[in-house]
Amino acid sequence: MTIRNHSPSRIAYYEQIAKLGMAPLWESLHTLVPKEPRPQAVPAIWKYAQLRKFVLESGKVISAAEAIRRVLILENPGLPGKASITSNLYAGLQLILPGEIAPSHRHTQSALRFIVEGTSAWTAVDGERTTMHPGDFIITPSWTWHDHGNPSIQASGEPVVWLDGLDIPLLLQLDAGFAETYPEDTQPVKRPEGDSFARYGQNMLPVRHDVKNGNSPIFNYPYVRSREALYTLSRTNEADAWDGFKLRYVNPATGGYPMPTMATFMQLLPRGFRGKAYRTTDSTVFSVVEGQGNVRIGEQLFEFAPHDVFVAPSWQPVRFDTDEDAVLFSYSNRPVLAALSLLREERQ
Amino acid sequence: MTIRNHSPSRIAYYEQIAKLGMAPLWESLHTLVPKEPRPQAVPAIWKYAQLRKFVLESGKVISAAEAIRRVLILENPGLPGKASITSNLYAGLQLILPGEIAPSHRHTQSALRFIVEGTSAWTAVDGERTTMHPGDFIITPSWTWHDHGNPSIQASGEPVVWLDGLDIPLLLQLDAGFAETYPEDTQPVKRPEGDSFARYGQNMLPVRHDVKNGNSPIFNYPYVRSREALYTLSRTNEADAWDGFKLRYVNPATGGYPMPTMATFMQLLPRGFRGKAYRTTDSTVFSVVEGQGNVRIGEQLFEFAPHDVFVAPSWQPVRFDTDEDAVLFSYSNRPVLAALSLLREERQ
Amino acid sequence: MTIRNHSPSRIAYYEQIAKLGMAPLWESLHTLVPKEPRPQAVPAIWKYAQLRKFVLESGKVISAAEAIRRVLILENPGLPGKASITSNLYAGLQLILPGEIAPSHRHTQSALRFIVEGTSAWTAVDGERTTMHPGDFIITPSWTWHDHGNPSIQASGEPVVWLDGLDIPLLLQLDAGFAETYPEDTQPVKRPEGDSFARYGQNMLPVRHDVKNGNSPIFNYPYVRSREALYTLSRTNEADAWDGFKLRYVNPATGGYPMPTMATFMQLLPRGFRGKAYRTTDSTVFSVVEGQGNVRIGEQLFEFAPHDVFVAPSWQPVRFDTDEDAVLFSYSNRPVLAALSLLREERQ
Amino acid sequence: MTIRNHSPSRIAYYEQIAKLGMAPLWESLHTLVPKEPRPQAVPAIWKYAQLRKFVLESGKVISAAEAIRRVLILENPGLPGKASITSNLYAGLQLILPGEIAPSHRHTQSALRFIVEGTSAWTAVDGERTTMHPGDFIITPSWTWHDHGNPSIQASGEPVVWLDGLDIPLLLQLDAGFAETYPEDTQPVKRPEGDSFARYGQNMLPVRHDVKNGNSPIFNYPYVRSREALYTLSRTNEADAWDGFKLRYVNPATGGYPMPTMATFMQLLPRGFRGKAYRTTDSTVFSVVEGQGNVRIGEQLFEFAPHDVFVAPSWQPVRFDTDEDAVLFSYSNRPVLAALSLLREERQ
Repeated sequence: MTIRNHSPSRIAYYEQIAKLGMAPLWESLHTLVPKEPRPQAVPAIWKYAQLRKFVLESGKVISAAEAIRRVLILENPGLPGKASITSNLYAGLQLILPGEIAPSHRHTQSALRFIVEGTSAWTAVDGERTTMHPGDFIITPSWTWHDHGNPSIQASGEPVVWLDGLDIPLLLQLDAGFAETYPEDTQPVKRPEGDSFARYGQNMLPVRHDVKNGNSPIFNYPYVRSREALYTLSRTNEADAWDGFKLRYVNPATGGYPMPTMATFMQLLPRGFRGKAYRTTDSTVFSVVEGQGNVRIGEQLFEFAPHDVFVAPSWQPVRFDTDEDAVLFSYSNRPVLAALSLLREERQ
Repeated sequence: MTIRNHSPSRIAYYEQIAKLGMAPLWESLHTLVPKEPRPQAVPAIWKYAQLRKFVLESGKVISAAEAIRRVLILENPGLPGKASITSNLYAGLQLILPGEIAPSHRHTQSALRFIVEGTSAWTAVDGERTTMHPGDFIITPSWTWHDHGNPSIQASGEPVVWLDGLDIPLLLQLDAGFAETYPEDTQPVKRPEGDSFARYGQNMLPVRHDVKNGNSPIFNYPYVRSREALYTLSRTNEADAWDGFKLRYVNPATGGYPMPTMATFMQLLPRGFRGKAYRTTDSTVFSVVEGQGNVRIGEQLFEFAPHDVFVAPSWQPVRFDTDEDAVLFSYSNRPVLAALSLLREERQ
Repeated sequence: MTIRNHSPSRIAYYEQIAKLGMAPLWESLHTLVPKEPRPQAVPAIWKYAQLRKFVLESGKVISAAEAIRRVLILENPGLPGKASITSNLYAGLQLILPGEIAPSHRHTQSALRFIVEGTSAWTAVDGERTTMHPGDFIITPSWTWHDHGNPSIQASGEPVVWLDGLDIPLLLQLDAGFAETYPEDTQPVKRPEGDSFARYGQNMLPVRHDVKNGNSPIFNYPYVRSREALYTLSRTNEADAWDGFKLRYVNPATGGYPMPTMATFMQLLPRGFRGKAYRTTDSTVFSVVEGQGNVRIGEQLFEFAPHDVFVAPSWQPVRFDTDEDAVLFSYSNRPVLAALSLLREERQ
Repeated sequence: MTIRNHSPSRIAYYEQIAKLGMAPLWESLHTLVPKEPRPQAVPAIWKYAQLRKFVLESGKVISAAEAIRRVLILENPGLPGKASITSNLYAGLQLILPGEIAPSHRHTQSALRFIVEGTSAWTAVDGERTTMHPGDFIITPSWTWHDHGNPSIQASGEPVVWLDGLDIPLLLQLDAGFAETYPEDTQPVKRPEGDSFARYGQNMLPVRHDVKNGNSPIFNYPYVRSREALYTLSRTNEADAWDGFKLRYVNPATGGYPMPTMATFMQLLPRGFRGKAYRTTDSTVFSVVEGQGNVRIGEQLFEFAPHDVFVAPSWQPVRFDTDEDAVLFSYSNRPVLAALSLLREERQ
């Protein structure tokens, strides 16, 4: 509350009620109930070409065991010290070296991994491991045990980097975070790789599958399939004027998003795309998979290249331009807004 | 109403009220509200080895054009003249010869096709055609334009036979059947083959997909995927004692069944399976895809071989035995019972 | 199947396949898949002035104890011997005399009671009794213990008559009927009258209420409230041109219908109402609460007076005319059609 | 991030990555992903006996017209300057004097009013006005026009005070706030008082009512009904050991909460209640309607009396004690947590 030039009596009144834990709404009404969203987060880009060496260097700064999760947080310049890339979302680049393990734990925060480079690492979720390849989208839903590893047995082992997306800020705002450490570094493997996908990934479900919550029973959505879907569509359909070709990942047991707090998308902007501007109340983090292009977010213009990360805060107009095919992964807090009837979109 | 030995006054009373359109409930209460289901449908099997020549002969009896749909109805012996294989469901074997077309129409009845033999035919649904292969499961949802064809251009054309499953008896009971004929033999093709699968079949959905009803936007569920899912599971999991390995087909936009009135399943009974008995209030039609075995339904024991069709009416115990791997497709009225909270199951 | 003038070879073919349990679809396609619904049920009315004495006489024909339920079934003239008033629904007039009990049982059929005359009787459902007054709508959901009684202690005891509405024909068609008799004539009373209404009837619910199925936790919807709602609306709103003022009863725990298989409605046709015609695929049974008027159903014109029952089968146009205020209760199979995406309406 | 005693090289690394918008997760992991919720909000009480005179004095400090909403915010001592009573919720005491109007506007924030004292004021929501009485619970859902007034015509006019509950902090965190001012001070009245309640409040709904969002179509839940429901239950049921008798308000069109972001409850703690402790991840604001008692929240013990407001932050144990009957209204962010599968409860 900024107190403007008030009469002494009004100031005295304000001081009195402050002692009783009260404040005058009329001094801050316009800030509290604004005409339209005024996100503190700002449009921003993280250029992978600049960051990569620091991500790799983190491997020397601290061990995976000591760090528990060796991640460089991508912190929005508008939210300094908040470990947030948007008001509700967290993003970070995680490095795991050959021979390392990120030890098993679980938390109520939902997490996604989007693989940036390297092919030798795995993630385990609730008793099943999956190998991670660039472009794969992997989930570790709320309160599921998970650990990551990069085997050292092969001489061919390589550093693996992925983008972590979590709802950490949202859960802090909701006071709903719980966490537990698993007694061992890795949880026991109970099912062979591919088991979940066989059960849930082929447009079929086990006859006695119960939907207990909004989390997808598939936990690896391979890039080979997502990419094929986009290119099949692009060959014979017209691109949407705003989005190009854009699909959302789905929980096949509900038709909803893979996790209750984060939506995820993959889109193809075809060569020569000159997108129209749109804006929406969800805030979105993009990770470039293939191709280069430009994006205008609010007043900012960014050039993007593979593995760059950029962010579009709530209600900032977004517009894409490409001279070559570009594939973008993205995630946002859309399910939260949709569940609360607060999603608004505008296409120009 | 069977009138037992009643006094003349009671009989006179019954006659009087009958004139006013009334009848005494107490004479029929036990029939109307039975202790447990007493289906008129009986367990039955149709042996493809015996039927096949008649199915092919139908091609000489009538042309596809004259018949509109050249189908031999599989009629339950307990429901003579009712064109029903169970109380609510219809089954038939449809033949389409090279060069023929089954002309386009639509109806509120939901239909499924399960391909028995032949690889050259197509089905078109709402502007997209799909090629049908043995074991594929294809839907033509309520009120969607659909037509079938078997091109004659190839010398290699062959007769194609599939199992039609429809909810015809249910819609007659509900007085809810509507139908229309398309002005042309075939509807225009608006999208290339594979378009629906790219949009909906890869665990992704278009960002602006609206769920308008319970019908799956995927209309061909290829056998190659269903079979792979079952065998992947069977390699590393234990078979369920009643069902072996059993998956249900899913509408990826909702997690529900592909159509609102019929559930569909595919199951693998592994070699040497000695199943336990179960019973359920949905009535199920099975079509054998691969392998041989025995099934006991109620008091009946049937041997089954590829392409045989058999039926388990409501609340009849079912038990499977196999000496070799067997793959069974099946469909039932389970979604109807589930929607009305009338599904009951018992596993022994 | 009516076999038209066929060639001997075709007749021989039909006979051969009949032995194998098969029939040619093309001979019956138009009947099985009609252009529009052709219900066997016909429009009909039951005039309470004519029926009443026979309903009361049933009290002498059989005791409530012997009958278990002493009900005169209202049987649709188009469905003789079927104990059905529409394709899916049953209706009957039940009589209970002072000092009688209709013994406790339960069944998967859902039942509703709409009270016609008398004020002294009660219904018990799952441990709670409610007193029934004319115009009250009471449910005994699927598989709930229920019994009815009319105390004899008062000299003022009077015969009580109500309309029973059940989904008996539907459950026969679905082969889903189960029934059990309670070991005693009446179930124990566990909660005082009004308890359910306090918990669920005041636009509040217990904090830990779980929705287990589609059945309303309220089981008596008193007429005094329904009537007040309709008249409040009528004083300041315009009547709908087809329905007058029409509300549906609601399950407050879901917003759905009170039971999964039957919708129930109450409507006020204001004095001088000249309704437009509509038709719909649900079949509806009406019970007149107050007032007189005319209704045209299909080609039939009926005059109705209090306590009359009339029925509008699927897709028959319905049109109301009144010279005085009339209040109508009605029930239909609408939830079944809606759950299966088979509800169609047309307003002219 | 508090940087501990780090080596100069590590500090240099941190400075380098900070320039690129990155921060090391491992320095803040335990804060970001805590073992259990650590709300900044603290247990607190606002004693109406102390506040009342300041609330009334606000009427002299500023006019309703100038203030737009003349409200004293109840600000949690743990969230200074945040206009928040819990992490997600706002509470304030609003005063409206005879002859005043709080002008019409709408916003995406959902608002509830719980009437504290005075009987002469009204609230208008989307074209209908309702008179407000102490204990009534009134909603103005997201994006509905609303205005309040207190007529001056009567000499008997009195100041009216109510508790405002809004989701202002949540919408700031979600960057989803929009607001508009109505061109006139009051919106036009289109329907008479009682119209909504007649349509939606009697366990019935208009036949053609569409559910468009999660907002209840009832907007005044009168205290006379809520109180009657609680006392009816209390006469013949045993109190819950934690909650006494507790009901939640319901949206009768869905069975859900009246608005998507806030749950509301009314509970009766009977005389002599010695409650057990519970904790939950939703944060709850209580308003005392009748009676006195004690509540222990976390480490704090509060005595409460009529019109006091107190708050229980996430995961703080809560325990009630009363020597006389006490009635408490409360609201929380439970629907948000439930929608995101983040609601956890523990009863001790």
